[in-house]
Amino acid sequence: MKKTVTNLKGVYAGGISAGIKANGKKDLAYLFIPGCYGSAGVFTKSAFIAPPLIVTQGALGQGTVKALIANSGNANAATGKTGLRDAKETARLAASLLGIKPREVAVASTGIIGKFLPMDTVRAGLRTLLRNPLKRDGTRAAQAIMTTDLTRKEVFVTGSVGGQRVSVGGFAKGSGMIAPNMATMLGFLVTDAKVDSTTLRSLLRRAVDDSFNMTSVDTDTSTNDMVLVFSTGAKGKRVASAQAKREFLALLTKACQHLAKLIAADGEGATKLIEVHVSGARSQREARMIAKNVINSPLVKTAMHGADPNWGRVLAAAGKDPAAKVDPKRVDLTFAGAPVMRRGQVVPHDRKRIRRLMSVREVPVRLHLNLGDGSAVAWGCDLTHGYVDINVSYN
Amino acid sequence: MKKTVTNLKGVYAGGISAGIKANGKKDLAYLFIPGCYGSAGVFTKSAFIAPPLIVTQGALGQGTVKALIANSGNANAATGKTGLRDAKETARLAASLLGIKPREVAVASTGIIGKFLPMDTVRAGLRTLLRNPLKRDGTRAAQAIMTTDLTRKEVFVTGSVGGQRVSVGGFAKGSGMIAPNMATMLGFLVTDAKVDSTTLRSLLRRAVDDSFNMTSVDTDTSTNDMVLVFSTGAKGKRVASAQAKREFLALLTKACQHLAKLIAADGEGATKLIEVHVSGARSQREARMIAKNVINSPLVKTAMHGADPNWGRVLAAAGKDPAAKVDPKRVDLTFAGAPVMRRGQVVPHDRKRIRRLMSVREVPVRLHLNLGDGSAVAWGCDLTHGYVDINVSYN
Repeated sequence: MKKTVTNLKGVYAGGISAGIKANGKKDLAYLFIPGCYGSAGVFTKSAFIAPPLIVTQGALGQGTVKALIANSGNANAATGKTGLRDAKETARLAASLLGIKPREVAVASTGIIGKFLPMDTVRAGLRTLLRNPLKRDGTRAAQAIMTTDLTRKEVFVTGSVGGQRVSVGGFAKGSGMIAPNMATMLGFLVTDAKVDSTTLRSLLRRAVDDSFNMTSVDTDTSTNDMVLVFSTGAKGKRVASAQAKREFLALLTKACQHLAKLIAADGEGATKLIEVHVSGARSQREARMIAKNVINSPLVKTAMHGADPNWGRVLAAAGKDPAAKVDPKRVDLTFAGAPVMRRGQVVPHDRKRIRRLMSVREVPVRLHLNLGDGSAVAWGCDLTHGYVDINVSYN
Repeated sequence: MKKTVTNLKGVYAGGISAGIKANGKKDLAYLFIPGCYGSAGVFTKSAFIAPPLIVTQGALGQGTVKALIANSGNANAATGKTGLRDAKETARLAASLLGIKPREVAVASTGIIGKFLPMDTVRAGLRTLLRNPLKRDGTRAAQAIMTTDLTRKEVFVTGSVGGQRVSVGGFAKGSGMIAPNMATMLGFLVTDAKVDSTTLRSLLRRAVDDSFNMTSVDTDTSTNDMVLVFSTGAKGKRVASAQAKREFLALLTKACQHLAKLIAADGEGATKLIEVHVSGARSQREARMIAKNVINSPLVKTAMHGADPNWGRVLAAAGKDPAAKVDPKRVDLTFAGAPVMRRGQVVPHDRKRIRRLMSVREVPVRLHLNLGDGSAVAWGCDLTHGYVDINVSYN
């Protein structure tokens, strides 16, 4: 069986159907780390930040957070003062049921925007959910935060950090790939490495920049997006040296990228994952911009749906922002490993063969700019009838 | 009958099927203003600027341009040195047939990217097209630049400028609404007002910023986008005073907006035009950014397709860029004239009635931010199965 977050010592989680969703699916999850050593979060930059995020930011600002309550089916967004009161009450009730302080509880919501949380349902649900809070049901928690997601998204990676074997486990949700909004992106990670909150905060920002923030231009801008990371501190030696931090960052980034790819592959209506590698840019910043412009182009996304090595669309998307330099005469481009352009010239290629290579679930597109050392990877999905169907009727 | 560009004195135009398009439709157009007084252009900012644009920029830089040759069916983009040679030869041959200098001819191309122009076809086509270059077939010219466009796009407006009645006529093409590329945006305008090239240049930039550049975030970035304006100078008094310039700018902007709306309404697969008005922003710049973010949100576009007054999606899109301020507590929002939000609070509304109001060909969305005096309008279309179909198979 695949490992999940509750395979980490001292980490408890679970999920139930509380009745927030009309369809009876799981909709209320918790994560509980009684002996939590450090915690940190990264949040949406949207002006319309939702009340649960305000509560969670407040909690993280006051010390280490030990528990998370997350619901799906209702985003508690654009709900004003009532929404804030409801988010606070959720944290308070969960705290009393867990025997911890309200400011030690983070809350997260995802689902429909602009409706108040059904608090009677939430209260009753919390009492059921936390009756025995020492469950090891990480997978049920992962299920309970899904909305339009078709697949559950879990990760568990292990590596060497500061000479110790440590792990990072976690789960995530998100499937609105182009401009998430109803389909919030949430990510929750736990490590048994001993990392303090300050270090977690700076490393999480960097890990998120190279993972969740590269799945779509807009993933960092939904009203409810958040990624949290917790340290149990179970492995005794603190991650303090520069090298240990680098090693931990690499492991955390790996975990985040795994979840980010699962999210991209599960984009609404998606039939395939597209992985855009940009290298040779003038800077990493420009490489990111270009990779995102390519992954977000609806014309590239539809071409990918048709397994079409449409280099014209990729180049047009790559070159569209004058702030990120692309020299048409220096570009190398491959689809699914097959070269179609070298130094700006079309390479003779067997179109049918490349179409076959592209007719798979994961298609890498590599763009080398021959201008510098900047590189970045972005993940996305194709654009299909399914996307239109889901979003026309989602209400 | 509706007026077209050739209703202006001294303006000649026509269009034929030269055989560049495989389907036998019109694909070669000309515009000829033998006594042209002034000319100017605005061009794509894409790094992958196509050869015809380089030739046209060069011509405009050397003096007044008197003629335009435009073809559809082939963009002559990403064609390198061969493409540049072909564009130059097109201008040279047209010049010799018209009895003017090569540097007095602008060229424009739209259609598939990455294939060389079929020059034998182009040469033979030009000879037919320009056999009698004093035709008054503005409408045929408008037809001959269409690609995936379903409708012809022409404009003719008249107004008072510096105490004289003057007109602006023109035509345009473009239908790939989200991220044009194969579907280049072209606009050609002619006025009988006497406006010199320098003035035309600065006013055209401003008119385009408030029209074509507001139809989609990406219209200004396709490899082949260009808008040209010509002055016949037929109306004797030169547009020189600040007031006359303002008046002319208003008329030119009106003409450009008319064409821009036709382009937005004819977006690939579109069933309706969406007009997003943002007012009360801190600045015009921020109003533009916000209007574009709303009009470009795939979630807003799909909601519009479903006649869904989904204010959550509009707000999420409006608030997504921290650089453009939105205060959630101050926002007023209407769909098709019906208020759904006032000062950030949802207004009780009859959802079914609003859905009926939105089930029309043109839907205005008004967002008032109550922060300042900045305002902007952006035009776009809904996102449908049709868009996916067109772009999966377009190759």
